[in-house]
Amino acid sequence: MAVIFEKVALIGLGLIASSMAHAMRQRGLATTITGYARSAETRAVAMELGFCDAVFDSAAEAVAGADLVVLAVPVGAMETVAKEIGPFLKPGATITDVGSVKQAVIEAVAPHIPPRAHFIPSHPLAGTEHSGPRSGFATLFENRWWLLTPLPGTNPAAVARLRGFYEAMGAYVDEMDAAHHDLVLAVTSHTPHLIAYTMVGVADDLRRVTDSEVIKYSAAGFRDFTRIAASDPTMWRDVFLNNKDATLEILGRFTEELFALQRAIRKGDGAHLHEYFTRTRAIRRSIIQAGQDTAAADFGRGATPAAPVDIPKKP
Amino acid sequence: MAVIFEKVALIGLGLIASSMAHAMRQRGLATTITGYARSAETRAVAMELGFCDAVFDSAAEAVAGADLVVLAVPVGAMETVAKEIGPFLKPGATITDVGSVKQAVIEAVAPHIPPRAHFIPSHPLAGTEHSGPRSGFATLFENRWWLLTPLPGTNPAAVARLRGFYEAMGAYVDEMDAAHHDLVLAVTSHTPHLIAYTMVGVADDLRRVTDSEVIKYSAAGFRDFTRIAASDPTMWRDVFLNNKDATLEILGRFTEELFALQRAIRKGDGAHLHEYFTRTRAIRRSIIQAGQDTAAADFGRGATPAAPVDIPKKP
Repeated sequence: MAVIFEKVALIGLGLIASSMAHAMRQRGLATTITGYARSAETRAVAMELGFCDAVFDSAAEAVAGADLVVLAVPVGAMETVAKEIGPFLKPGATITDVGSVKQAVIEAVAPHIPPRAHFIPSHPLAGTEHSGPRSGFATLFENRWWLLTPLPGTNPAAVARLRGFYEAMGAYVDEMDAAHHDLVLAVTSHTPHLIAYTMVGVADDLRRVTDSEVIKYSAAGFRDFTRIAASDPTMWRDVFLNNKDATLEILGRFTEELFALQRAIRKGDGAHLHEYFTRTRAIRRSIIQAGQDTAAADFGRGATPAAPVDIPKKP
Repeated sequence: MAVIFEKVALIGLGLIASSMAHAMRQRGLATTITGYARSAETRAVAMELGFCDAVFDSAAEAVAGADLVVLAVPVGAMETVAKEIGPFLKPGATITDVGSVKQAVIEAVAPHIPPRAHFIPSHPLAGTEHSGPRSGFATLFENRWWLLTPLPGTNPAAVARLRGFYEAMGAYVDEMDAAHHDLVLAVTSHTPHLIAYTMVGVADDLRRVTDSEVIKYSAAGFRDFTRIAASDPTMWRDVFLNNKDATLEILGRFTEELFALQRAIRKGDGAHLHEYFTRTRAIRRSIIQAGQDTAAADFGRGATPAAPVDIPKKP
């Protein structure tokens, strides 16, 4: 494919940024990739793996001359890096971010981007439970959605160029406004993550069921929660602190529904439970038809797990 | 491997029973497999697929002469089949069940089993979101736990024989008392399922986020809930109605924890959130080390999903 941005600067070098670098390399979408990460260890790993052409000790140096700058740091760190790079942006450069929350990022970043640059917030709906520069891979964005939440008045050519760049990585691109994005993600991602974290925490707390029992017998449903609950703690802390209103709204609806099901269990109302479970099953079918998951049983987990080993003790 | 039970009768021919039949065939653990299912359609499918040597129109006929009888029907149907087969059991036969709840099954089944037979309740911690006679496969139980909850005074030789039978299918076997089983499963399976059902129901109800948005953007966490929430509605209705006390207890702890996290979000207490999310991440690591899941990113989903298709409309 053709080069879309000559020089791309990645600010933050975790799962998303390193996957973008691998994808750009594989598909020839950029000529030069520079990088910056706050941690010296992360910078060293990025150099070792070679997915950047150059890694700098400051974000300001990394963005010099860049045609595209990607802010790929936790949402809570966006303002600091935006402030630092603002004065060093090349005229006409496009600035995007990959944060899971959009309104708070816009408030934090937009004031620091000079008018000569195009700030176009975005969010790839792709990831794994792994994090850090070693976890990236070129196909992460293939057949996944990448949402753009451009501000009113943004240069349409700049938006089209960024869209083409994400599509060239294999993503599907949609546009929506930032407030709607934050509500949609509160439903499809943020609240499910909080619930999974909570359930895993409950299991860990319960003294009458031992840790090794929880772990050994996790295949019955719980292990799918633990995968979700294994995601990066800093990223998720920042998501909840920065998408507070939408998350609290969806949580309120969730507890209301949960209490209704709880009452049905207490009262022995089997018809209510059966009707509810039948309805949710239909939603699963729609997701498979939409190509966002595999119909293979058990998520298509391929590998037969290894034999059980000693269960680690809680410290 | 050697035959362990000459003649095995499967009462109920869904995912678990058909998987047991495939595993017995593959490993040579039985000489004859008979079957019964309430639905004529299920019986016809079992005949078509050939995983039983004979399929009968009544449970009583299916168990005649059987050395092992497996009750593989929803928990709410256990009493009816136990009552029906009781008088027809061969002296010395072993009767087991594969229900997800043990105390209620014991209360429902034990009174109908004559003293000449050995009733040993059991529960395989294995399954997929698919159900029915076409969904079974021979390796379902490999490296999965199969719990036995024998009643006090059960013949030890009969327990050892059933244990050997499950181990020969590739399972790991543990024994515990029925009340403890029901609490452990409330934590590792029943409450997680209820929560997943609830979250999927909330998403479906929310009018400001469209169905197609929920489905398209599900990759961000929600789709793992939908898989859990796609399980068989009848089976799960019966689980909640029959493990009421333990499920309600764990639900109470869950909402308590959830409210604490909700308050942390409202108050902006990032330290509390970060500490909680770090702790839950460690549990995931233990599960992978225990061999109950793959460390491969995203559950090792192998296949690249197909391109998006038209999103089905809600009827």
